[in-house]
Amino acid sequence: MKAFSEKMTIGFLGGGQLACMSALQAYRFGFDVIGFTSANKYEPLDRITNKTYKGIPENPDDLLEFAKKCDVVTLENEFLPAEKLQEAHESSGVPFVPNPTAFGKVETKVLEKQNFEKAGIPLPPWKRILTAEDALDFGKQHGYPFMLKSSKGGYDGYGNVTVQNADDISQAMAQLQKGEQRELIGEGFISFRKELAVQIARSSTQVAGYPCCQTIQQNHICKQVLAPAPISEELRNEAIILARKALEAIDGYGLWAFEFFLTDNDQILLNECAPRPHNSGHYTIEGCVTSQFENHIRAICDLPLGDTSMRTNAAVMINLLGTQNGDLELTGSNELLQNTDGHLHLYGKKQSREGRKMGHYTLLGDNLADVQKTALELTDGLQV
Amino acid sequence: MKAFSEKMTIGFLGGGQLACMSALQAYRFGFDVIGFTSANKYEPLDRITNKTYKGIPENPDDLLEFAKKCDVVTLENEFLPAEKLQEAHESSGVPFVPNPTAFGKVETKVLEKQNFEKAGIPLPPWKRILTAEDALDFGKQHGYPFMLKSSKGGYDGYGNVTVQNADDISQAMAQLQKGEQRELIGEGFISFRKELAVQIARSSTQVAGYPCCQTIQQNHICKQVLAPAPISEELRNEAIILARKALEAIDGYGLWAFEFFLTDNDQILLNECAPRPHNSGHYTIEGCVTSQFENHIRAICDLPLGDTSMRTNAAVMINLLGTQNGDLELTGSNELLQNTDGHLHLYGKKQSREGRKMGHYTLLGDNLADVQKTALELTDGLQV
Repeated sequence: MKAFSEKMTIGFLGGGQLACMSALQAYRFGFDVIGFTSANKYEPLDRITNKTYKGIPENPDDLLEFAKKCDVVTLENEFLPAEKLQEAHESSGVPFVPNPTAFGKVETKVLEKQNFEKAGIPLPPWKRILTAEDALDFGKQHGYPFMLKSSKGGYDGYGNVTVQNADDISQAMAQLQKGEQRELIGEGFISFRKELAVQIARSSTQVAGYPCCQTIQQNHICKQVLAPAPISEELRNEAIILARKALEAIDGYGLWAFEFFLTDNDQILLNECAPRPHNSGHYTIEGCVTSQFENHIRAICDLPLGDTSMRTNAAVMINLLGTQNGDLELTGSNELLQNTDGHLHLYGKKQSREGRKMGHYTLLGDNLADVQKTALELTDGLQV
Repeated sequence: MKAFSEKMTIGFLGGGQLACMSALQAYRFGFDVIGFTSANKYEPLDRITNKTYKGIPENPDDLLEFAKKCDVVTLENEFLPAEKLQEAHESSGVPFVPNPTAFGKVETKVLEKQNFEKAGIPLPPWKRILTAEDALDFGKQHGYPFMLKSSKGGYDGYGNVTVQNADDISQAMAQLQKGEQRELIGEGFISFRKELAVQIARSSTQVAGYPCCQTIQQNHICKQVLAPAPISEELRNEAIILARKALEAIDGYGLWAFEFFLTDNDQILLNECAPRPHNSGHYTIEGCVTSQFENHIRAICDLPLGDTSMRTNAAVMINLLGTQNGDLELTGSNELLQNTDGHLHLYGKKQSREGRKMGHYTLLGDNLADVQKTALELTDGLQV
């Protein structure tokens, strides 16, 4: 564990809302922030710092030059190869957190599944798939429908195709492989009653798990998060234990998020993980004593971790997804601003696009079902 | 009341910690921030925005050019004359909040006392003083010791001198007037048992008062804030009513702070006001549902105001004042970071100086006396 020093400069690879919300916490500690964003691309983080490094993230020289300006480098997406991050870490001597060695163990779905399977974490049935024959075999063994997913680079439903029957396979393969022999995985269709998520912060000496929450997706994008998840405390604790075990299995540091399926017969299966603050943890900003963003900053600086417990009995987060294509124009928000213990966040994106994450709204209260009902009513008419 | 729009650009006159903490809330709404800071002067706000206007605040052209870049202009200190702010507002058509017409009614201590007296707000005995004779008269009428204060520009004890007896007067006058006939006031020494403060947010359609807190000064600088003030609820409510009455008397908008003396016989006398978020309200960041900084942003944008009630029974804020002169080096902070519901803020100032406000620490809990004890213990050994 390190002693606190005001002199930290924190480098962010990527400059979207996750970097911004982390940066706001870094500023609370008096730290400086420098964003590495792709040349000629506007990023919300650019607005809130006077230090932006414009370069090509894939270019090792740019990455090294950037790292040398920082006391620690972190990331808000998984687009860069772990190997390049590790090289930049070694050449610069600057810590990268999440640590690229751990990120490297989950950077493709195949590696992620292999490593978590080895650690005894329960997973949905899966198989590495390169050819149509592999996929046919998977269908025979696990039945239809099943999911075909890109091993690398998928998010929010991009890179996923549902295979309804054997006839779908060639088209699904073509859609995901784009004429190359890209690595895919087949994943058995899980009949689940809920999707769950847990954030875990880990420093060199401490681990802190957040309450287990429920995520509700709409068109493969997270729309609602309910905290704590309305399931038994035993199941919530089991999810936290699994998340912690998974993080320790890959020896990961920083703030990580783990997403689970809760099956119809109450099995908890790990779906996937993200080596960074996660949409499922936005409720922690007001809902927990220490937010995921603050513990992210604490963990990457190896400072003492903060209390992760909830402030109120219930918290509900609603993603504000773009309702049109064009300049952002928010209407219908005044009721929502007036509601007690409702907290509006907008991400400073210039352009709205249908389904794009433009902001979120967190409502705190006593009774989860009531809070959810009110939060949905308040955000229902919102145009973003 | 206005409808929410993401397109706001908020201009700050001054770039210290008050502007920074307000800016962090503006960012949460997706707003942009532009700081007007004096040419060649480093301000903490510079670090957290990519839009800084460097100019001479006293220069009307600079002020006008700055205002034209903003959707609303606010301030974090009282150094500029209300008349210049009003001119820039009228020439640019851009709203200035706090409104210069209200600020003009309190920009000198003489005006402030006159206007609040007229409105029936109880004040300590006072008198406008230009000459040694005026001061002698005041001493004769109200006794010694009394306070001699600059009518304009004092803060944190600067610009105040205690006059112990008639022989002190000529030196005290010389110290404050510096050879000119600057306007001073004499203020009767109040035997008070506590100092209190209340923040009030006011938009075109709403007023929201914060809980009345106690401030504890050390060498004329606020060192501790206890919320709610450990006095009867009746007295706390009386202070809130007085603060609101005072703000309405000068028709002020935005977020204002009012400081009071609670005399030995339970009279509440207005000491002074500030037309901006105030050190006495830092506890509201974690201690209240909506912080003074968020309601500042809401009020200046004329958005609905948020709930000002406290989240916990007790909140204590300790100012972290510089303990040395030189580069900031914070030591002894790890225990404080580990304490549940303790919240560390540092302001990003590069240089520490003895007594300089470098940050603050807010601790929440159930019992005010216990919280105060713990907060003092945790911050006691801190080197800043």
